[in-house]
Amino acid sequence: MRKITVLGGGSWGTALATVAARNGNTVSLWCRREEQARSITESRENLRYLPGSPIPDEVKATSNLKEALSFSDLWILSVPTQSVRPLLKEIAKVSSRESVSLCNVAKGIETQSLKRISQIVEEEIPLAKYTVLSGPSHAEEVIKGLPTAVVAASDLSDQYLIWQKALNTNFFRIYSSDDVCGVETGGALKNVVAVASGLAHSMEMGDNAIASMVTRGLAEIMRLAVAMGAHPITLAGLAGIGDLMVTAYSRHSRNFRLGVALGKGMTLDEAVASLGQVAEGAYTVKAAVALGQSLSVDLPITEAVYQVLYQNNSPEETIKDLLSRDPKPEYPPHVFEGQKVDH
Amino acid sequence: MRKITVLGGGSWGTALATVAARNGNTVSLWCRREEQARSITESRENLRYLPGSPIPDEVKATSNLKEALSFSDLWILSVPTQSVRPLLKEIAKVSSRESVSLCNVAKGIETQSLKRISQIVEEEIPLAKYTVLSGPSHAEEVIKGLPTAVVAASDLSDQYLIWQKALNTNFFRIYSSDDVCGVETGGALKNVVAVASGLAHSMEMGDNAIASMVTRGLAEIMRLAVAMGAHPITLAGLAGIGDLMVTAYSRHSRNFRLGVALGKGMTLDEAVASLGQVAEGAYTVKAAVALGQSLSVDLPITEAVYQVLYQNNSPEETIKDLLSRDPKPEYPPHVFEGQKVDH
Repeated sequence: MRKITVLGGGSWGTALATVAARNGNTVSLWCRREEQARSITESRENLRYLPGSPIPDEVKATSNLKEALSFSDLWILSVPTQSVRPLLKEIAKVSSRESVSLCNVAKGIETQSLKRISQIVEEEIPLAKYTVLSGPSHAEEVIKGLPTAVVAASDLSDQYLIWQKALNTNFFRIYSSDDVCGVETGGALKNVVAVASGLAHSMEMGDNAIASMVTRGLAEIMRLAVAMGAHPITLAGLAGIGDLMVTAYSRHSRNFRLGVALGKGMTLDEAVASLGQVAEGAYTVKAAVALGQSLSVDLPITEAVYQVLYQNNSPEETIKDLLSRDPKPEYPPHVFEGQKVDH
Repeated sequence: MRKITVLGGGSWGTALATVAARNGNTVSLWCRREEQARSITESRENLRYLPGSPIPDEVKATSNLKEALSFSDLWILSVPTQSVRPLLKEIAKVSSRESVSLCNVAKGIETQSLKRISQIVEEEIPLAKYTVLSGPSHAEEVIKGLPTAVVAASDLSDQYLIWQKALNTNFFRIYSSDDVCGVETGGALKNVVAVASGLAHSMEMGDNAIASMVTRGLAEIMRLAVAMGAHPITLAGLAGIGDLMVTAYSRHSRNFRLGVALGKGMTLDEAVASLGQVAEGAYTVKAAVALGQSLSVDLPITEAVYQVLYQNNSPEETIKDLLSRDPKPEYPPHVFEGQKVDH
């Protein structure tokens, strides 16, 4: 029986704590707010994010960071992307256990630095042995035990094996990869394409158009990821097209719904008001446009989403522009060759 | 203004004839049955396959094969896979124009020979300059002018350029590729994964499971395609994942509906009776299993579909077996390296 620490009591952290407990581990689940830790302890549910799904007794919730960190040397990092660096700084202050196995499950790019989470971890806790876990995984379904497949990527093969042993079950299947950059980039960029899919959906462009948009969105994610150092095939995997599909075809996705709202003529502010919260894609699109410019990668769909979100372009005109571009070779040679590039 | 011949008056041939006419070409549309040619001429619609969508006057329907063939040296081949070889034999008898540009749009593998359509064309009309056109393209949407993107692949770059010039519009965007094998294999194998998606859907396995199944289905299509000589990245394109998505997420797809019917406990015969016709995936799965065996490629999802269709395995037990397999590296090295192999 292993001990596992889950940092972050949102829906995904809670679902993963439950998966870990069902696989025979004991879990310390750290919640930022004391009130939330108490609510989980008393109700044995995450009433705010995953009401109705029982949390096993092997999961102990706490709001004491130091206690959670000293509980184990297997840490799952499950906080929003922009909160990762501040939390890591806090961790470095309160814990002496720095050579832990750290499994990040946040998806995104740090807006300020344009860095991926593995790069942030390397800067803040350089001794941590890093793994990223990603894929098509609505927390609501995972906590119910519905079948899900994800991928765990690490530079160190013993690390993804550790996480496979700790978390793999027949209903939470963990494939492995050594392409950290590819897995991280896929998870971050898919939300932008999901916004584009919502736009196309609201404009009633049809099933062909949505599948074409998602596929050409994958092509541009792949181009950007390769320029960042990924292998293109990783983007054809669970953390790339797998996660993109589950997002771009889901009416439950906030990113998809943001696209639908914009396609109906709402401004970004009106769309955010109607959704009740900001969709991650609205942040990521800025980082993606900046990365595309600095790495000289053509990102027509990402730029179209940016123009609709931040430059008041009409969705109709923006889509019309997209459709009038000359179609090119489907995959240009440098993606075809698909060699990893170090940046 | 170019002249184009479309061989086959089904829904896809009719939609492509309409696209060609809208792009300023005159078209001879050959229909096997005289009665159908007459009905199109009189009603300016394909009442059987695409009722309600007008066909432009620049499309002339005929049931005279020789007349259609002598009309142009740009031929679009749009008949069911298993009918391709017999039609090509007929063509070789009645036409002396053999060095034509031939664009095939059928998707499948010849059951008897396990050959792709480019290989059949090479055997039957060796002088024809071959292109394959494929992608996510419901004919019902294409004939209505809804946006669609497809890919045209040929060994000869002047050939896909000819078809781009003839058919490309803002609403029917044609990307190009030189990977004929990859484009053909993607279109053929996606129907099997669509059956698996329908199975998962009927068993209410959730969105994560369907996205995971489709992504791992893509991985096995990619493995088999690479063993047949394709480049793996092509399968991440419009003729691979693009077409797979539009099929596996569509309740209109016969293959998806076949999977749903089987998942509800129907036998193959009952499912075919309820659908009114056989779905292509029911044939392709046999060819795929045979190809996997002869090329030593592991195809767990394809084999699961085969077992449910032809070996009376229960869908529940078959899926349980699939889920209990040890997850492996997401893409094994030989796919990662992605070199074309000649077979």
